[in-house]
Amino acid sequence: MRIALDAMGGDSAPDIIITGAIDALNMLDKDDELYLVGPEELITSKLGALSLQDSRIKVVNASEVIGMDEPPVEALRKKKDNSIGVMAKLASKGKVDAVISAGNTGACVAACQLRMRNLAGVNRPGISVIMPTFKGPVAVCDVGANVACKPINLYQYAVMSSLFIHDMYNIDKPRVGLMSIGEEDTKGNDITKKTRELLLADRRINFIGNIEGRDVFNGVCDVVVCEGFVGNVILKLTEGLVSGLFGALKEEVKKSLFLLALVPLLKGVMKNFYKKYDYHEYGGALLLGVNGTSVICHGSSKAKTIKNAIFAAKQFNELHINDKIVEHLSGSSMGTNDD
Amino acid sequence: MRIALDAMGGDSAPDIIITGAIDALNMLDKDDELYLVGPEELITSKLGALSLQDSRIKVVNASEVIGMDEPPVEALRKKKDNSIGVMAKLASKGKVDAVISAGNTGACVAACQLRMRNLAGVNRPGISVIMPTFKGPVAVCDVGANVACKPINLYQYAVMSSLFIHDMYNIDKPRVGLMSIGEEDTKGNDITKKTRELLLADRRINFIGNIEGRDVFNGVCDVVVCEGFVGNVILKLTEGLVSGLFGALKEEVKKSLFLLALVPLLKGVMKNFYKKYDYHEYGGALLLGVNGTSVICHGSSKAKTIKNAIFAAKQFNELHINDKIVEHLSGSSMGTNDD
Repeated sequence: MRIALDAMGGDSAPDIIITGAIDALNMLDKDDELYLVGPEELITSKLGALSLQDSRIKVVNASEVIGMDEPPVEALRKKKDNSIGVMAKLASKGKVDAVISAGNTGACVAACQLRMRNLAGVNRPGISVIMPTFKGPVAVCDVGANVACKPINLYQYAVMSSLFIHDMYNIDKPRVGLMSIGEEDTKGNDITKKTRELLLADRRINFIGNIEGRDVFNGVCDVVVCEGFVGNVILKLTEGLVSGLFGALKEEVKKSLFLLALVPLLKGVMKNFYKKYDYHEYGGALLLGVNGTSVICHGSSKAKTIKNAIFAAKQFNELHINDKIVEHLSGSSMGTNDD
Repeated sequence: MRIALDAMGGDSAPDIIITGAIDALNMLDKDDELYLVGPEELITSKLGALSLQDSRIKVVNASEVIGMDEPPVEALRKKKDNSIGVMAKLASKGKVDAVISAGNTGACVAACQLRMRNLAGVNRPGISVIMPTFKGPVAVCDVGANVACKPINLYQYAVMSSLFIHDMYNIDKPRVGLMSIGEEDTKGNDITKKTRELLLADRRINFIGNIEGRDVFNGVCDVVVCEGFVGNVILKLTEGLVSGLFGALKEEVKKSLFLLALVPLLKGVMKNFYKKYDYHEYGGALLLGVNGTSVICHGSSKAKTIKNAIFAAKQFNELHINDKIVEHLSGSSMGTNDD
């Protein structure tokens, strides 16, 4: 399998991208290939310094980089030779099977949609992120690809995320919850009410009904379906709150002299706890609905995150999840003509 | 001041409502009055059992109760003599100055809007909840009164919540953040983009720009403005995550024999920590924009929550915040004609 990596994407690029790629080699097959996409000279010199001798790592030149905060569409248009765009082009020409970026998310979504096109039957791709919860992994889709969702988009996110989490996390009959503001059928907005009807009409989806914010973490469902705007708030709020809570708890512990002496012990507990709920373990989020495999990583990804993203891309590809999505949606009575 | 309490609202009604009212008496003035609204016989017998002798507590009969999960508008129409409706009627006739309920939020919002009407210049009321964060209180508005917000509504929530948190929490020039999915001006949906323009146009608001989910807890703003759907998800996600995290952390600590011996000590730290971030301390959320004082409490309110809600209602009323809202909006160039 051939995987393209945006060597320039993320807060610590290109170093952690290169390290992540190298770390992944041990677990990859002999005929797998990793394409580091970015300024050739820079990447080659970095690889040279590491005196790496593995022909599975290749370099593809892309002279420009899109910044994390640049307006995506404008940046893609202006910077013709940017690393994300070059990756998407490689995928569209069948030269790679998967693309991975920890760079500008909007640019990655736009480039993949433009070059790789949507899967047959899919109106709009959505980002499905695995959130580690106290009761196991939960897929939340969409978290920002589509800020103006229509009911058909949310229905398709439920289908795609169900197949994704079923195959990749061995979850039988994934329970799908529709994010709303109350569990009762009558609560929600126009979009949730119409989406509810679509989900109820497809008996192949294990739809458990409306859920509320608190249900993301209490194990009632395996898939959370929501508009990109709402999912993005959920994702970032969780990050901010978890990091804030641990910071505050540490401050509180410091105030107690008894506990202060036990900080090393408590650190062990924290580490164990963090590991369990660490999103870096999950690699990245899948951009579901594009004709190929696209993994979008957090800007603050570590080498471990990139390594895990490579495994996620390989697994997603080898499980032929896209074929299953196309098959499910082709058997669906819901058309693609209202988007 | 005369305050009506929904004696039947919340998971532990009427007991905790009655206890909360009694606990508040010490801090109230001699001419303050608390009206317990609900089935007269039941409440009188409960009060009798406590052998309370304080003429400031009065009972107003309301024979029906709206359940927590009933569809609000339908329930208000069917149950003519429900406690929430009776309270709102008392307010509309000028017989009480404030209403407090820990019952069905939707019914409370609908009854207050219907009976008390909106303040001059306000298109739609919004629920402004104080969230305890690591950097001080933050007002989030709206958290569920209005699931289909227009830009003018969000603009007015910014105005009302700024005045509210300024007066009640002594925050000078409250910093207002507009919830979006990126800090850049160009990110967001149609509603955030239009709201942004309205906020920028009113120089009396200390608008700091778009914020993301993680910013709720990191002290960058004092007021978060968002659609009711999004605010409701924020509120409930935070509740679920905090309670889940503490539960998981406790489990982790239990696994360590060393730390297990220290659980009593750790409990002290937790208690201190909880107190700091305990929403019960804040009493309830203000329904801003109605012509009167309406405090909406969490269904799982304790007696302490109700007591604090009574103080919040009294303070809100005595600070004449509604007059300031009307004054601000009457000087605003933004009309009320687009809703």
